[in-house]
Amino acid sequence: MIPVGILGATGMVGQQFIACLTNHPWFTVDWLGASERSQGKAFRDAAAWRLASPLPDRIAKKVVEQAAPGNAPKLVFSGLDSSVAGEIEAAFAAAGHIVVSNSRNYRMEQTVPLLIPEVNADHLELLRCQSVATGWKGAVVTNPNCSTVVLAMALAPLRQFGLKTGLVTTLQAISGAGYPGVPSWDILGNIIPFIGGEEDKVESEPRKILGTLKGDRIDYHPVKLSATTTRVPVQNGHSMSVSVGLEQRPTPEAIIDAWNSFRGRPQELELPTAPPQPIVYRAEQNRPQPILDVNSDNGMTVTVGRLRTCALFDYKFVALGHNTIRGAAGAAVLNAELMHKHGIL
Amino acid sequence: MIPVGILGATGMVGQQFIACLTNHPWFTVDWLGASERSQGKAFRDAAAWRLASPLPDRIAKKVVEQAAPGNAPKLVFSGLDSSVAGEIEAAFAAAGHIVVSNSRNYRMEQTVPLLIPEVNADHLELLRCQSVATGWKGAVVTNPNCSTVVLAMALAPLRQFGLKTGLVTTLQAISGAGYPGVPSWDILGNIIPFIGGEEDKVESEPRKILGTLKGDRIDYHPVKLSATTTRVPVQNGHSMSVSVGLEQRPTPEAIIDAWNSFRGRPQELELPTAPPQPIVYRAEQNRPQPILDVNSDNGMTVTVGRLRTCALFDYKFVALGHNTIRGAAGAAVLNAELMHKHGIL
Amino acid sequence: MIPVGILGATGMVGQQFIACLTNHPWFTVDWLGASERSQGKAFRDAAAWRLASPLPDRIAKKVVEQAAPGNAPKLVFSGLDSSVAGEIEAAFAAAGHIVVSNSRNYRMEQTVPLLIPEVNADHLELLRCQSVATGWKGAVVTNPNCSTVVLAMALAPLRQFGLKTGLVTTLQAISGAGYPGVPSWDILGNIIPFIGGEEDKVESEPRKILGTLKGDRIDYHPVKLSATTTRVPVQNGHSMSVSVGLEQRPTPEAIIDAWNSFRGRPQELELPTAPPQPIVYRAEQNRPQPILDVNSDNGMTVTVGRLRTCALFDYKFVALGHNTIRGAAGAAVLNAELMHKHGIL
Amino acid sequence: MIPVGILGATGMVGQQFIACLTNHPWFTVDWLGASERSQGKAFRDAAAWRLASPLPDRIAKKVVEQAAPGNAPKLVFSGLDSSVAGEIEAAFAAAGHIVVSNSRNYRMEQTVPLLIPEVNADHLELLRCQSVATGWKGAVVTNPNCSTVVLAMALAPLRQFGLKTGLVTTLQAISGAGYPGVPSWDILGNIIPFIGGEEDKVESEPRKILGTLKGDRIDYHPVKLSATTTRVPVQNGHSMSVSVGLEQRPTPEAIIDAWNSFRGRPQELELPTAPPQPIVYRAEQNRPQPILDVNSDNGMTVTVGRLRTCALFDYKFVALGHNTIRGAAGAAVLNAELMHKHGIL
Repeated sequence: MIPVGILGATGMVGQQFIACLTNHPWFTVDWLGASERSQGKAFRDAAAWRLASPLPDRIAKKVVEQAAPGNAPKLVFSGLDSSVAGEIEAAFAAAGHIVVSNSRNYRMEQTVPLLIPEVNADHLELLRCQSVATGWKGAVVTNPNCSTVVLAMALAPLRQFGLKTGLVTTLQAISGAGYPGVPSWDILGNIIPFIGGEEDKVESEPRKILGTLKGDRIDYHPVKLSATTTRVPVQNGHSMSVSVGLEQRPTPEAIIDAWNSFRGRPQELELPTAPPQPIVYRAEQNRPQPILDVNSDNGMTVTVGRLRTCALFDYKFVALGHNTIRGAAGAAVLNAELMHKHGIL
Repeated sequence: MIPVGILGATGMVGQQFIACLTNHPWFTVDWLGASERSQGKAFRDAAAWRLASPLPDRIAKKVVEQAAPGNAPKLVFSGLDSSVAGEIEAAFAAAGHIVVSNSRNYRMEQTVPLLIPEVNADHLELLRCQSVATGWKGAVVTNPNCSTVVLAMALAPLRQFGLKTGLVTTLQAISGAGYPGVPSWDILGNIIPFIGGEEDKVESEPRKILGTLKGDRIDYHPVKLSATTTRVPVQNGHSMSVSVGLEQRPTPEAIIDAWNSFRGRPQELELPTAPPQPIVYRAEQNRPQPILDVNSDNGMTVTVGRLRTCALFDYKFVALGHNTIRGAAGAAVLNAELMHKHGIL
Repeated sequence: MIPVGILGATGMVGQQFIACLTNHPWFTVDWLGASERSQGKAFRDAAAWRLASPLPDRIAKKVVEQAAPGNAPKLVFSGLDSSVAGEIEAAFAAAGHIVVSNSRNYRMEQTVPLLIPEVNADHLELLRCQSVATGWKGAVVTNPNCSTVVLAMALAPLRQFGLKTGLVTTLQAISGAGYPGVPSWDILGNIIPFIGGEEDKVESEPRKILGTLKGDRIDYHPVKLSATTTRVPVQNGHSMSVSVGLEQRPTPEAIIDAWNSFRGRPQELELPTAPPQPIVYRAEQNRPQPILDVNSDNGMTVTVGRLRTCALFDYKFVALGHNTIRGAAGAAVLNAELMHKHGIL
Repeated sequence: MIPVGILGATGMVGQQFIACLTNHPWFTVDWLGASERSQGKAFRDAAAWRLASPLPDRIAKKVVEQAAPGNAPKLVFSGLDSSVAGEIEAAFAAAGHIVVSNSRNYRMEQTVPLLIPEVNADHLELLRCQSVATGWKGAVVTNPNCSTVVLAMALAPLRQFGLKTGLVTTLQAISGAGYPGVPSWDILGNIIPFIGGEEDKVESEPRKILGTLKGDRIDYHPVKLSATTTRVPVQNGHSMSVSVGLEQRPTPEAIIDAWNSFRGRPQELELPTAPPQPIVYRAEQNRPQPILDVNSDNGMTVTVGRLRTCALFDYKFVALGHNTIRGAAGAAVLNAELMHKHGIL
């Protein structure tokens, strides 16, 4: 078993890392790092466990350490808040750790892979230049924003049809905002048509993810994106209404087939967290729905539906993914699994 | 006081007509018509009152009659289900009644006005041809679908800027589906990305509403629309994310000013149900929100917000309106008020 | 594998039976019976599948038959609506079938076991008299109402302390009302303080379940119960606030120990659906909570919490259980497993 | 017009005071006090307005001052957090102000009236002793906890029947926890069976309110109360299931009549905020419900329903009231109106 650490272990992403790694066949959580307030306490005293899956006893008793390199194992997952992630993750990478981060800080850095293993596993190659550019002995690898993952996965198989444009309105679950996150006063029976910083990420991150590795850099994909992001009273699952322009005007059947047959390195390598079919098209006219589809294949599948022609672009459809699993902790674990198979850990 | 009747009085739209007309300064509900099942019963025995506003005692005791012309007053509001509205409304119109209908059946008929009084009050002129075309002694006037009203009002002031295209994703309240309507099983903590028949209405009705009266017909507005309609766990208020193409590329300030200064015949005529400012732009970045904005001016105001440039069209924004008031019962009452001032009743 | 049939297969309880029996180690669904409307159709065409767990392909293709004995296997689970369950279940029992029913029709019949296997497995003995009393070649065995199960399980370990009285207010999930069940209009952001027929069941059924087998009949337990049942906007999980009078005034520790150490025949026999610890006391002051606790051990565990002295009775506490699993389909499957081990099938 | 001040003006209770006092016929908000962070700022810059009713322009521009006596008018409403209310309210009272407080700090003090004007207006007499006991030149008057108000009002008319015991389970709205209050993560589709400190208040405060003024002190009412308080996903309105023991075993009709005919000093004096009928019994079996009944008479009416015999006590019923109006801001305003009519201001 490979020992792993968790940075920001007491926060919600940290807790989801713990949940995702319980019973993992390769990785075992061996080290927990958090802010000063938690240091020296047993995890169960440092954190209020807020997930339905039980907190493993072994973790409950583990003492939380300072979020600094030293005792941590080589591989650390980072669920740090972006206000501190930049500095701490750099410190770990400099000290030789492999930081698999869910934070946004380094996502758009030129030599940092922004990975969805099914889509751009080859971007891992950036790591060769990362050490040169940064002087880090270790490395930082990131996964995208929770809405970006869903959008980028749904768009990836459409690149073959000449993907030009994507206009998206998201309906995002409250778990995406962490804890305490969205006050119930604001969201019960309500819609909040704004999420700070989100639209920028959704419009920019997919262009890097869908881009092409050219030597030591990524040629961004030319797709033009426009996003409106909203918060809805849903526990888990980001839904999105998407219109796309496709130069080659494929048939609907070709698009559905492109989605359903889409596979990537995780499926090839049979990574433990990989879903057998990463994108599933549901033919029913009222799907995908969060409460019915969000947990498909342990939350790692993106579900699409309602493909139809758009009067303004070529096609429109609805996509859904689990924001804290496929969009956060599960995404990072899949990244680490890919790296392990590539001999990077 | 002008006596009015309500067709489909026991249904949810009928109940909302009763609520909207309680204490109305001009109209007094004098006749209730419903299906066979309810005939001969006092209203309170025929219908389960489901609104928070109290059922007036006078209505509670009134006996429900057959939904057929005869005893009904000249002006009848129709909240009939579309499965029966076609035939019954025609029978009333043929018998000389003025039918102010919320049903979809006649909305797109060439000689039937599809009215939003602030937007196209002049379309009332169609009535001159309606009697010729139909042979009816009376008339049918309609209001749009509950989502259409919100969209068409938000778009109306943009016609001056060369409105070309509109792409909209709606987030619609459950009250739009009537009673029993959406099962809680389906919508609690969930999103349903489909509403039967809704997208067609949202794409077609605004073109008639925004169109121009040319002699005895409406020249449809050339705007091209594409809609995705979804159901969300909100009690009242349809929200929508809208992107628009505008030939003249106005400044944001010009658009906001066009919205805020927009007035129509109802404001000019000071109709009792008219809001003082039909469209209100909120500058806060997280508005409009259903629970905060839906009841503005008794639910007759459309609230817009979040105007910003769109990477694919020219601008994008969010709009919100009360679906059962501005989008249904209040819309019809405003239509009747307009007709009264025009001497049609 | 033992073939089993499902009566009322297209309804929500029927669907939950299918879900609970997918991958069951002993039982395999071999026959589906439903109302005339569904007969002759493949299940997927007869029923809209409304559960998040996938509909097994094998079941999707199976043709639904008439809800009449004949082709059905010996063991049938009944999720029939109570309006028809009485007659149909009797017909099956008369024809020699073992009917494991979730319907309320026969629960309080003198020779029909009303089972919670952990609590009153010995009541199965009633079956010896059932055939005499009814002339049935087969048998009917029932599980309690979904709220009763949770209450009766929480009370069972308290019998040893001289359980005299129980006053309960329930907060029941919408899934308890089936589909379409509770309109979202009525329950979104709301409480409905009434559930038809529910309070009677909650006050009477536990007295039979907690009663003592005396020869060929059950001596009802003398506990006096008073219930108020309410509907809350929760998907799954009935919560209840309970105050109890206990003659022997045990310590809180004794009560908690009685709950945590409670085991029954299913644990002894290691039945496949049996939870390892049927009642779990959570020491945190804000538990049990539906979204955190309802799925404990696949929804078969009852969670209790907040034990404290009551100013009017002796103790008060909160209990929670999964209403469609522990309170319905899972309960019936556990009953069938018990019967199988007792050689009754 | 009488000028009034608001302590804790930027908080949620403060905002509700502003909303309740907009258009008040006697009182005009003239002074806003809040914590250091807000001082010197215009209200609109110091506070995020979170209510659906519009923030009056006059208040928006008003500069927030230090929460210290000095410039404040004689009458101040306090919505201060209990962590600071004790000291600040005392300072104001000492300086000669009349503090009408919603905070819990002084509620149970012997010489502080804990008022529900319909129930115990005579307790105002305590003020005569308050200055002696405290040395304050001014005074402090309090209203009860938001759940207590509903319970105590429902119980008040039952005193005549020999009220002995009351067992209550509450289902409390999220607005009772203020802002940001309950995280949506915790309450969406969920029940939290615990509210810190709430059960103590509900069990103790009614005994003072229902008590009898004897000279310069209150003889507490002997009713024994036991409470379980829970949080439910409802925006506004605390519901409660109540069982009561009544020595004289009245008929149900007598109880309903006692509720419906209950009137107090506010009705006698025709206070502006007084509802015409403070307690309304709804005969429908599924009432009261928050979304239908909470706003009755501007949120000042308590609605009761479902009266029936209890197998353990004498009767049980359900009660509902608006927690932020009847249970907080409206309660305090009614207290001030009563005091004004009694010449205390």
